[in-house]
Amino acid sequence: MNKLLIVGTVAFDAIETPFGKTDKILGGAGTFIGLSASHFNLQSAIVSVVGEDFPQEYIDLLKSKNIDVTGLEVVKGGKTFFWSGKYHNDLNSRDTLVTELNVLADFKPVVPENFKKTDVVMLGNLHPLVQSSVLDQLTEKPKLVVLDTMNFWMDCALPELKEVMKRVDVITINDEEARQLSGEYALVKAAAKIQEMGPKYVVIKKGEHGALLFHDAHVFFAPALPLEEVFDPTGAGDTFAGGFSGFITQSENISFENMKRAIVHGSNLASFCVEKFGTERMVNLTKEEVQNRLQQFKALTQFDIELT
Amino acid sequence: MNKLLIVGTVAFDAIETPFGKTDKILGGAGTFIGLSASHFNLQSAIVSVVGEDFPQEYIDLLKSKNIDVTGLEVVKGGKTFFWSGKYHNDLNSRDTLVTELNVLADFKPVVPENFKKTDVVMLGNLHPLVQSSVLDQLTEKPKLVVLDTMNFWMDCALPELKEVMKRVDVITINDEEARQLSGEYALVKAAAKIQEMGPKYVVIKKGEHGALLFHDAHVFFAPALPLEEVFDPTGAGDTFAGGFSGFITQSENISFENMKRAIVHGSNLASFCVEKFGTERMVNLTKEEVQNRLQQFKALTQFDIELT
Repeated sequence: MNKLLIVGTVAFDAIETPFGKTDKILGGAGTFIGLSASHFNLQSAIVSVVGEDFPQEYIDLLKSKNIDVTGLEVVKGGKTFFWSGKYHNDLNSRDTLVTELNVLADFKPVVPENFKKTDVVMLGNLHPLVQSSVLDQLTEKPKLVVLDTMNFWMDCALPELKEVMKRVDVITINDEEARQLSGEYALVKAAAKIQEMGPKYVVIKKGEHGALLFHDAHVFFAPALPLEEVFDPTGAGDTFAGGFSGFITQSENISFENMKRAIVHGSNLASFCVEKFGTERMVNLTKEEVQNRLQQFKALTQFDIELT
Repeated sequence: MNKLLIVGTVAFDAIETPFGKTDKILGGAGTFIGLSASHFNLQSAIVSVVGEDFPQEYIDLLKSKNIDVTGLEVVKGGKTFFWSGKYHNDLNSRDTLVTELNVLADFKPVVPENFKKTDVVMLGNLHPLVQSSVLDQLTEKPKLVVLDTMNFWMDCALPELKEVMKRVDVITINDEEARQLSGEYALVKAAAKIQEMGPKYVVIKKGEHGALLFHDAHVFFAPALPLEEVFDPTGAGDTFAGGFSGFITQSENISFENMKRAIVHGSNLASFCVEKFGTERMVNLTKEEVQNRLQQFKALTQFDIELT
């Protein structure tokens, strides 16, 4: 089986949306990526850090999804990273209420020996130096390195972000971040500039408005599935990244045609994530549900026009 | 050849965008619909009204596109409807600077004799009573009636809008309008409610974020083509409607599969409209350009995933 190395936070989230609120629940980019990628035939490992307050049942949950947690450091006496946020009525924007870095502040990622040679690396949103440090530990160049990042690092660690960008094949960011990073408003132009900065594939996430994949002169677009209820957007972008990198790992094919499929798988999995709070929907998601919704995705987007 | 009856304004527009501004140029929903529909093999007629100040060269332009202008009333001594607007930097919102109804204030549409029996009717955005009056004049039920409308009529002529909605097959509105009309935020739910109000097909236009087609449990989505430059969004929605109704008229097929194609043709034509001010791009658009971009549309959206 091919290997996927995941780096990203494993955390507590407390979330408030117009539909309700949660106490501290399982969250973190690494968690969502791992749960999503577990829908593919692969071996995965998470490199992350938690505190002593992190429940064993959450660790057992990750293990039950065949995620190697050797690289999940548990800091004695430490507290787990905690984020709390409140979504606005349209769910498209949110306020961060609390960010307690805790053990994340001193996180030194250690890649497990058996993942120093891996097929794909999914660098979840973290300080660019942490992302770089993971790449430094690999003994062989992976087939594909995917980087997720956010505006926060563009504001406070831009040189480091630019360095790690030179070392990756794919970057996933949202539309506003693409504009900020490139200084271009039109996403076509923004993607072209970002390709010059390193990653030859640029994925621009537009939330409920779907995702674009750019590579040279090629563009592909996958919509978000229109849903009756969007309950909680937390983790949707990471679930997308997990589906994208998971599918690539399984299929071992980095052609543009296959990246298109990866975008569709990522969008499909993300459509489930938002239906319940936190990881709830992803934890119990069945293979049959995933396949049925892929069928809906095809119906949503595929048409048949003969060109003259 | 099948017949398409178009009702909509023929007007002067003065437009300001971040990229420049125009004097009074040719505009109006009927104009954009007509130019767009002229890319299909059909007979079309515009029912509208202009003043004596309307240049003969604009009328000749419509004629040159094989649009029947018998139903285009020229009011002696009257002034043509004039709209002026200024777009904000992101081109997604605009301020109306001037609206002079002029001859439009007393517009009584008269359907030409040879279009009282027509295959398709495209009711462009106008007072719902004007739209109803056109349907009243038809001697035979058309195969398909498409209605475009806007929030203005929801605010000031809702009962009349609801009446005309009962008489149409397809409605095209934007996302905010769909929410206003239905009282539902999620577009899936909004579309379901709007279907109960009359039109069995609901097209929700999301501007740069594409368009959705709803019918019973079916949903189809077409993105807007990502463009390097969007110059002027004026008329894009009408161009979409013209492509949609024009293709249906030509193909004489109102199955859901064919409506999908119509959505793609509409989106494809609208992608040209925004590249220059007003009607400029549409006036000179060649068949080859349209076909080439349809190819781009396929590449943008089509993928190949085998379901297990």
